[in-house]
Amino acid sequence: MKLFRHGLMGAEKPGMLDDQGVMRDLSGKVSDIGGAVLGEAGLAELAAIDPASLPVVPEGSRLGAPVAGIGKMICIGLNYADHAAESGAEVPPEPLIFMKATSAIQGPNDPIVIPRGSEKTDWEIELGIVIGTPAKYVSEEDALDYVAGYVLANDVSERSFQTERTGQWTKGKSCDSFGPLGPYLVTRDAVADPQNLAMTLSVNGEVMQNGSTATMVFGVAKLVSYLSQFMTLHPGDVISTGTPPGVAMGMETPRYLRPGDVVELEIEGLGRQRAELVADT
Amino acid sequence: MKLFRHGLMGAEKPGMLDDQGVMRDLSGKVSDIGGAVLGEAGLAELAAIDPASLPVVPEGSRLGAPVAGIGKMICIGLNYADHAAESGAEVPPEPLIFMKATSAIQGPNDPIVIPRGSEKTDWEIELGIVIGTPAKYVSEEDALDYVAGYVLANDVSERSFQTERTGQWTKGKSCDSFGPLGPYLVTRDAVADPQNLAMTLSVNGEVMQNGSTATMVFGVAKLVSYLSQFMTLHPGDVISTGTPPGVAMGMETPRYLRPGDVVELEIEGLGRQRAELVADT
Repeated sequence: MKLFRHGLMGAEKPGMLDDQGVMRDLSGKVSDIGGAVLGEAGLAELAAIDPASLPVVPEGSRLGAPVAGIGKMICIGLNYADHAAESGAEVPPEPLIFMKATSAIQGPNDPIVIPRGSEKTDWEIELGIVIGTPAKYVSEEDALDYVAGYVLANDVSERSFQTERTGQWTKGKSCDSFGPLGPYLVTRDAVADPQNLAMTLSVNGEVMQNGSTATMVFGVAKLVSYLSQFMTLHPGDVISTGTPPGVAMGMETPRYLRPGDVVELEIEGLGRQRAELVADT
Repeated sequence: MKLFRHGLMGAEKPGMLDDQGVMRDLSGKVSDIGGAVLGEAGLAELAAIDPASLPVVPEGSRLGAPVAGIGKMICIGLNYADHAAESGAEVPPEPLIFMKATSAIQGPNDPIVIPRGSEKTDWEIELGIVIGTPAKYVSEEDALDYVAGYVLANDVSERSFQTERTGQWTKGKSCDSFGPLGPYLVTRDAVADPQNLAMTLSVNGEVMQNGSTATMVFGVAKLVSYLSQFMTLHPGDVISTGTPPGVAMGMETPRYLRPGDVVELEIEGLGRQRAELVADT
C-alpha cells in the first residue's frame, strides 16, 4: 500500500493510492495515518479496504508528511562510505545517531525555508524507516517485523549551524521545514528489498546525488535492532538512514541552496518530492 | 500556580496545588496540561479557578511528567563553568544543544531503568523551561514572555553511550526513563528569579550536587532567544538548561548508579523528585 496525508498543514486527512495511482480519501475509515494504525493489525484493516469504494481526493491537494504524530525522528550520520569521504570523515565503527526536531517535519512539496543568517543550507536524500510496532532490544533477525514501511526523506542541513556553531549536529538539522517527508508511506510488503533502491536528487534540474541504498554501511535491519538497544522505538517514529554522496558540502566549491532553487528527489518506488527554496522574511 | 499530572502512566489527568499544598484534580476544567493551555490565556483561565472547589486527588497517587504532549526536549550542554571543568571540557562560546528523545520522559518518582549493558548511568539535576507560546526569532529582552513556567529535570545520562559509542550525545541521553520531569510545572509568575534557585541532588542520602542556577553560563532568556533563532519553540516544548558540578563522571573514581540506589533532587520552589534505580531485566 501507498498511504499519504492530504489537506492543509496541521489538518491533514489520511489517504491511500488505488491500483491506478489515483489518490483516495481514507478519512471515513481511520482518523489518521499514525500510532496503532501502523501496526500489523491496523495495516491489515487498511489492506482489506477496496480503494475503489473511497472518494477521490481533489486534484492539486497539498500533501503532508505521510505519518501523523511522529514522536521522534532519529537520523543516522555518515552511513554511506563515499558520503563520509566527501565530508572528510571516517565511517563510524557503529551507527552515529542524532535527532531532528519533529517541528521540522513537513510535506514533500512544501517550500523549504532558508533560515535567517544561513549561508550553507544543503540537501540530503535519505531512505526513512517508519516504525509500526514498539521495538525494544530486538534482534537484527527480527527487526523488519517492527517496520511499518518506508518513506522518502530530505534531511535538509545547515552546515554552518551543524558544524561551526558549537558541537552536536542537531542545531543544523532542526530548523523549521528541514524535514520534508513523503509523498507516501509505502508499506513494508510493497518494498521488495529496501537495500536495493535507486536514489536521485537534483537541484534546478541538475543531478547532484545519484546513489542506491545498496551502499549503506548499516542497513535497515541493523539500524532498527541497534537503536532498540538504546531506547524504545514507538509506532510512527522515523529513522532517516543517511545520505549517499553528492551534497553541496562535499563539493570543492560548495554550491549551497538559495531562494528560488528547486530541489527534486526520488527513491525508487517511494515517490518524488519537489520543493522550492524560499527566504525566511 | 503549581500544576501537575496524576494517575497511571499514559492516562494522567491534570491537577493543581491549592494554597495549603493539597493536590486538587483539574480534569473537570481542562483535558490536560499542555498545548494551548500553557499560553497566557490558558493559564489565566486556570488561575481564575478556586482550587478549593476542586476534588482532592487521592493520597499516594502516582505523578506523571507535569506537561503532556512534549514535542521536543532540547538540552543544553556544559552550561555551568564548573561542570564543564569537571567534564574536562571548555565552556562553549555559544550554547551547545542536543536532544533527548521524548520517549525518555517520565514522572518525577518513577523508577529509573539502567539499560542493558550500561555501566555508566549518571545523574544531572537541571532547571527545565516549559514553553507557553510559539517562539521564533524572539529577542532576549522579550524571551520570558514565551515561557509558561519551570520544571525540575533529571537529565539522566549513560556516559559510555554518550561519549564512547560514536559521536553525538543523544545516544546516551535518550534511553527509556532518562527524562524524569516534575513534580510541578511552576508557572513563571510564581518564580521570582529563575537565575537564583538553589539545586541539590543526593544519591542514597549523600549530597552530590549542590549548586544554584545563578552560575549558569547562558541564562533562561538567552537560551529561549538563542534556540528560537534556529527553530520554532512550541507550547509544551522543554529546554533543560544544563547541570552544575557533582556528577559521577566528574569524580576521580566515578561512582555510577546501580540498581537499588535512590536519587533525590530538589530545586528551590519547584519541588522534589525521588527515584529508585532498577535493572532492565
